[in-house]
Amino acid sequence: MPTLSLSPCLIGVSGGPCSGKSTVCQKIVEALQSKAGMGQANRVTVIAMENFYKPKTAEQRDLALHGNYNLDHPSAFHEQLLFNTLKDLLNGQTVKIARYDAGKYEHIKGVFDTIEPVPVIIVEGILVFYFPEIRNLFQMKLFVDTDADTRLARRVLRDMKEHGRNLEHILAGYINHVKPSFEDFCLPTKKYADVIIPRGADNHVAVDLIIQHIRDFIQYKPGKTETQQSIEYNLRSRPH
Amino acid sequence: MPTLSLSPCLIGVSGGPCSGKSTVCQKIVEALQSKAGMGQANRVTVIAMENFYKPKTAEQRDLALHGNYNLDHPSAFHEQLLFNTLKDLLNGQTVKIARYDAGKYEHIKGVFDTIEPVPVIIVEGILVFYFPEIRNLFQMKLFVDTDADTRLARRVLRDMKEHGRNLEHILAGYINHVKPSFEDFCLPTKKYADVIIPRGADNHVAVDLIIQHIRDFIQYKPGKTETQQSIEYNLRSRPH
Amino acid sequence: MPTLSLSPCLIGVSGGPCSGKSTVCQKIVEALQSKAGMGQANRVTVIAMENFYKPKTAEQRDLALHGNYNLDHPSAFHEQLLFNTLKDLLNGQTVKIARYDAGKYEHIKGVFDTIEPVPVIIVEGILVFYFPEIRNLFQMKLFVDTDADTRLARRVLRDMKEHGRNLEHILAGYINHVKPSFEDFCLPTKKYADVIIPRGADNHVAVDLIIQHIRDFIQYKPGKTETQQSIEYNLRSRPH
Amino acid sequence: MPTLSLSPCLIGVSGGPCSGKSTVCQKIVEALQSKAGMGQANRVTVIAMENFYKPKTAEQRDLALHGNYNLDHPSAFHEQLLFNTLKDLLNGQTVKIARYDAGKYEHIKGVFDTIEPVPVIIVEGILVFYFPEIRNLFQMKLFVDTDADTRLARRVLRDMKEHGRNLEHILAGYINHVKPSFEDFCLPTKKYADVIIPRGADNHVAVDLIIQHIRDFIQYKPGKTETQQSIEYNLRSRPH
Repeated sequence: MPTLSLSPCLIGVSGGPCSGKSTVCQKIVEALQSKAGMGQANRVTVIAMENFYKPKTAEQRDLALHGNYNLDHPSAFHEQLLFNTLKDLLNGQTVKIARYDAGKYEHIKGVFDTIEPVPVIIVEGILVFYFPEIRNLFQMKLFVDTDADTRLARRVLRDMKEHGRNLEHILAGYINHVKPSFEDFCLPTKKYADVIIPRGADNHVAVDLIIQHIRDFIQYKPGKTETQQSIEYNLRSRPH
Repeated sequence: MPTLSLSPCLIGVSGGPCSGKSTVCQKIVEALQSKAGMGQANRVTVIAMENFYKPKTAEQRDLALHGNYNLDHPSAFHEQLLFNTLKDLLNGQTVKIARYDAGKYEHIKGVFDTIEPVPVIIVEGILVFYFPEIRNLFQMKLFVDTDADTRLARRVLRDMKEHGRNLEHILAGYINHVKPSFEDFCLPTKKYADVIIPRGADNHVAVDLIIQHIRDFIQYKPGKTETQQSIEYNLRSRPH
Repeated sequence: MPTLSLSPCLIGVSGGPCSGKSTVCQKIVEALQSKAGMGQANRVTVIAMENFYKPKTAEQRDLALHGNYNLDHPSAFHEQLLFNTLKDLLNGQTVKIARYDAGKYEHIKGVFDTIEPVPVIIVEGILVFYFPEIRNLFQMKLFVDTDADTRLARRVLRDMKEHGRNLEHILAGYINHVKPSFEDFCLPTKKYADVIIPRGADNHVAVDLIIQHIRDFIQYKPGKTETQQSIEYNLRSRPH
Repeated sequence: MPTLSLSPCLIGVSGGPCSGKSTVCQKIVEALQSKAGMGQANRVTVIAMENFYKPKTAEQRDLALHGNYNLDHPSAFHEQLLFNTLKDLLNGQTVKIARYDAGKYEHIKGVFDTIEPVPVIIVEGILVFYFPEIRNLFQMKLFVDTDADTRLARRVLRDMKEHGRNLEHILAGYINHVKPSFEDFCLPTKKYADVIIPRGADNHVAVDLIIQHIRDFIQYKPGKTETQQSIEYNLRSRPH
């Protein structure tokens, strides 16, 4: 069985905080479910980079709760674990990912998501293009480009409504940590993007373009008939 | 015959001078020819906005030859003629477009290109998103985003090599006309783009994404079986 | 008495909403008061462009109160009145300016500020460089350049605290009116600036540079001894 | 003798290659000479960072001559030597600086410039704000902000005319080394600037503002009478 042609296609989706990265990813998965049935949706999966945060000490979590811990700095992530996980998926192995609770700033004890090496794996996060080894794994790199003030407007609404946080804490955390980290570590990786999606998830034309691309990839792998692919895929995608 | 569903898909491609717009378009047409045979290439056509320059007086052409005429200003274009031409194509009519000679700054007498209402029509030019009536005709708007200094480097090489022009004239024309017109009239239309293609034609991933999208559109119009489409298309695409 | 050499020096200060324009102006006036005594502070005056809003109808004020009126559009300003006022000041005349109440979106009935043709007149507002006739009156053009997200963070805090407004109304007004007007009308005038002041009023080095420049101008008009200037100034600056 | 108040004022001038940094510096020195006589010009001096290039091997110089050596990378500079030199000047010591020949890419053997601790010392170079220890020595940080395409147009003209270099070599060197180094190392330091001077040396208003500021500083040190300063300055500025 030719392993190489069966490797999942890795798509990286980056962009600033609240740019609409995860909503874009969600729309992709929904479109593949609704239009094509469960079969297709099972062929794409999304991995959020936040699951690869390094464990925080109680003190760090407390700082984070008060907006005084920089969650957007490269050093906050366990990049080797993310790299190894993606390599395993590329090698056709099923992996387990500890699930992170963004509200509590910690992983949920004992909860793991099982990710199979489905044909299309999307990895989203502000720093997915920051580490060269990880960046080089992607066959397509998308950057969701939403203006900084629009992103802040979304953040303020979300954090006040969903998490009931204090406005001044939100703004202080944004100005002190989120904004400088974006400018120092995320924005400079925009130059690696293959396609820039302006305005985020509201940009139906661009999102549909990506959806159609993924659908094509799932259905018609180059050089194979669909039947061949289904057979091979079934062989490969069994849990290891 | 339901005209609406048979209308060509209009794709606008904008970007600064020497951003790689026309090379991107050329790659699209080549890819559809080489991979899919002549049948597919006949289903996409490219219209350059430069063919819609207003006729210039002898004096204006002379100024242009010396780099003293602003060819990048909206007033240099016959936008109503472009709009009417695109509307005719959308209505399924074949059109004739007078061919422009960029070297001589004038249309070639008696030379017209016949454009049929093929399924995908790409319109490329620095100001294709400038006029609202024209902009609103596009189903997809692409902006080829290449840095200003990279574009100038290309321009200097091209104008010296291909046209044997004087370096100082090239630079003066660029600084006095090309640069301010780009900043005043083209760059502000970037916000209308659905997809931003960084780096231009060297960006294989983005160009392939667009090519695949066009191929899908040609082969599988939404809501129809392939057979239905072939029949309808054959009915429509006969010369008028 | 040579009128020309006695004309006030007009300084324009532009920048996005909440960029810190008026705080910069305030610091300049304070510095001239505190360090140099009242004599110097009387020699500089600040005119806010908001005083030159066109009168609004009751309906427009109501829309404004609900964030549905575009206060940042050039058409909202009475530019001819501002131009005439500045010309009168340049001609050595004292002028009266109707005072605007930003909270109520209307001018205060019967309240006028009397502005004398003091040596340095600062005009501040988001659109002071928009109208060419007004722009050309300035001997120095400053642009306070503060990031859009920082400006929004300030605006949210100010409007909630000072005016007790609703967060969602603030954000909707910002996204629908303030942001597009800044991008369409204010930002394109940045290219006319002589000096760009990053970060706004926190930028002590730049603010001090401007303060020192104004102090020099007040004290030592080029080509005259200080004594001559004092005499001439006293002659000129008497109320007309 | 209070050393601190007698320290020279260090002004850093950064900006992209061919932004006009050195022309701005030259205009400052000329203005102080022509308007104020030799006495004032002697009170300001300009240090170009290029004099602090690390020595190159014969091989590196050869690469540089063919546009294949990155002269704009931080590692090309001897930052510790620059830091020590500036500290010595701040401590009131006279220093000697080996003079660099930009045409030959090497220091001129045996040629040193003697720099005295005059009241105002301007340090100019693309990376003067890159090294934190050096950056923190400046009392004022200026960034000359000229568009990338304008800078390239200047560079092409200069390198072809002054140095008779080959157009394709110039453009290749620019795209491969100059442009990426500017974007990676110089542009990110713009955020440290106190004042941004758009357009470079053609910007008379901004250049005059800086000249006047320096003249003020030379003539009237804060908190001292002019006489006191002259005396102290004479005491300090004697050759060591």
